[in-house]
Amino acid sequence: MTSIAIDAMGGDFGCEPIVCGVIEALREQKFKAFLVGDKARIAPFIPAEFQKYIEYVQTDEVFEMKEGATDVLKRKNSTIYQAVDLVRNGTCKAVVSAGHSGATHSLATLRIGRIPGISRPAIATLFPTSQGGKTLVLDVGANVDCKPENLFEFAVMGEAYAKEIMGIKTPRIGLLSNGEEDSKGNEVNKEIFPKLKKMQNFVGNAEGNQIFDGSVDVVITDGFIGNIVLKTSEGIASAMNKLIKKEAKKSPIAIAGSILMRRVFKIIKKSTDYDETGGAPLLGVKECVIISHGKSTPKAIKNAIFQALKFSDSNINSVIQTQLSNYNQG
Amino acid sequence: MTSIAIDAMGGDFGCEPIVCGVIEALREQKFKAFLVGDKARIAPFIPAEFQKYIEYVQTDEVFEMKEGATDVLKRKNSTIYQAVDLVRNGTCKAVVSAGHSGATHSLATLRIGRIPGISRPAIATLFPTSQGGKTLVLDVGANVDCKPENLFEFAVMGEAYAKEIMGIKTPRIGLLSNGEEDSKGNEVNKEIFPKLKKMQNFVGNAEGNQIFDGSVDVVITDGFIGNIVLKTSEGIASAMNKLIKKEAKKSPIAIAGSILMRRVFKIIKKSTDYDETGGAPLLGVKECVIISHGKSTPKAIKNAIFQALKFSDSNINSVIQTQLSNYNQG
Repeated sequence: MTSIAIDAMGGDFGCEPIVCGVIEALREQKFKAFLVGDKARIAPFIPAEFQKYIEYVQTDEVFEMKEGATDVLKRKNSTIYQAVDLVRNGTCKAVVSAGHSGATHSLATLRIGRIPGISRPAIATLFPTSQGGKTLVLDVGANVDCKPENLFEFAVMGEAYAKEIMGIKTPRIGLLSNGEEDSKGNEVNKEIFPKLKKMQNFVGNAEGNQIFDGSVDVVITDGFIGNIVLKTSEGIASAMNKLIKKEAKKSPIAIAGSILMRRVFKIIKKSTDYDETGGAPLLGVKECVIISHGKSTPKAIKNAIFQALKFSDSNINSVIQTQLSNYNQG
Repeated sequence: MTSIAIDAMGGDFGCEPIVCGVIEALREQKFKAFLVGDKARIAPFIPAEFQKYIEYVQTDEVFEMKEGATDVLKRKNSTIYQAVDLVRNGTCKAVVSAGHSGATHSLATLRIGRIPGISRPAIATLFPTSQGGKTLVLDVGANVDCKPENLFEFAVMGEAYAKEIMGIKTPRIGLLSNGEEDSKGNEVNKEIFPKLKKMQNFVGNAEGNQIFDGSVDVVITDGFIGNIVLKTSEGIASAMNKLIKKEAKKSPIAIAGSILMRRVFKIIKKSTDYDETGGAPLLGVKECVIISHGKSTPKAIKNAIFQALKFSDSNINSVIQTQLSNYNQG
């Protein structure tokens, strides 16, 4: 049975949604959950029949969202530090945290370590497409200023994720740019473009709209732009939903229409819903690290755990290492 | 009567949508339209009663979309070159072009010239908000790699546009970043942040979602990121519309609902519709230059002309120049 370390208290809403998410996951799949936190607060949420799947790791120190990411290295008793160390010392195969994402990133990089050849781990997130599929975008926040070589590493990691986790045999990889033509791009993009072109699955520059139209599977960008893209798309999706609701309320006919379309709106919400993915893998570290949103619901935590199980059963990290050394020799 | 120069043949679909747009504009507002292009092809679209508002500037050479932007400087007989020169020589107060946007940018910068103190003109675009308002974002494509000082100039130009054209007395100006806190940002952002903080209307970093929630009026970024934001938001809006249509088709109940909601969807479409804005002003050049999409409809051209009229009646350029020299002295 796979063992997963869970920072049970790092989220914005305390341990309840996290522990409930673990139980929801256990109802569908069996694994060993190492819950790092204060047992007195966690245990009441665990039904008796699931106790046998739970191990408690006692600590009640939480690393707060407002603290500086690297300060976590001195906070050895914090839930996130202890959770990451369960992977470092081999007790667990993966860690899921809804806590401070910068801290998780620092701990993962420094305590678990990077895959040989990777200089910067990256956070990868799935975006919905109009075709009903998903596009993987990385980096969405771990690395603000990137060197050209970092983007190449992201491409290799994204390719491996698409193949090993998403099951796409020949994933189409695009470099996020201000136009499709080869000549487009900022300085960093232009410098790495020729090296990316040597990758068999690289399809060239991709524009922002291609994230959502199913024409590429993996989109590469730096963490500054990736974060802006993530927030922009959340922003417009939410603005459109609000506008539809507001306008619908203005007429009884439209209200009736929106009731009849309720199922459709649910599907749209689901397909643009963060909870469905649950968390973003931090690619490029030696083990599986899933970063969840601080405001994760139980459903998001459940899906983050399923991601962790799938990731730890895969060969993604050895594929990344092999591919990277092939590309760099070739 | 204000004279407007119009590149009548630079768009993707020839002169028809452009000339029809001019006529639509003339039905609502009176101005003198200098149509640059082949009179034999243009004249058939002009009803007799509007002939008196039209001046023809004869040339049938079109600068193609596939050509390199700066090559336009050698193409003195092209419609776009001639249209820009009508502003340069004082015949017209503004130019509207749906032709090659890079070429328009080059000609405007080199033939009309920059406002003293502006090193890089920028393209500014309006995005819809969930509150029913608009947010101005610049640059959305003119300048791919920006220096910190360029972003400061964009802020001054955006502030002036919001005040003089949008009529906002104290526009809230945000710097697009990967988090709201002052400490967030890439290297370029961080370097200019302290200078931006000295602007009275600067409200700090803005995240991607704030473009759409009405919490800021002006958002500053470089043209590479601005273009990605523009395409990303077009992409997700279009993906959501497609998903709604696709899902609605699956059940007769939902089809009925979508018919009842038709008016609502029209409003949503209108509020996210490029045609409603018509064109993006190139801020920072000495006269008014409006860049329209190559695929502009007559309605888009009409609205671009209205923008040009409003711009040329305003004091925006002298405000930019004065403010910039105040900030740089202060």
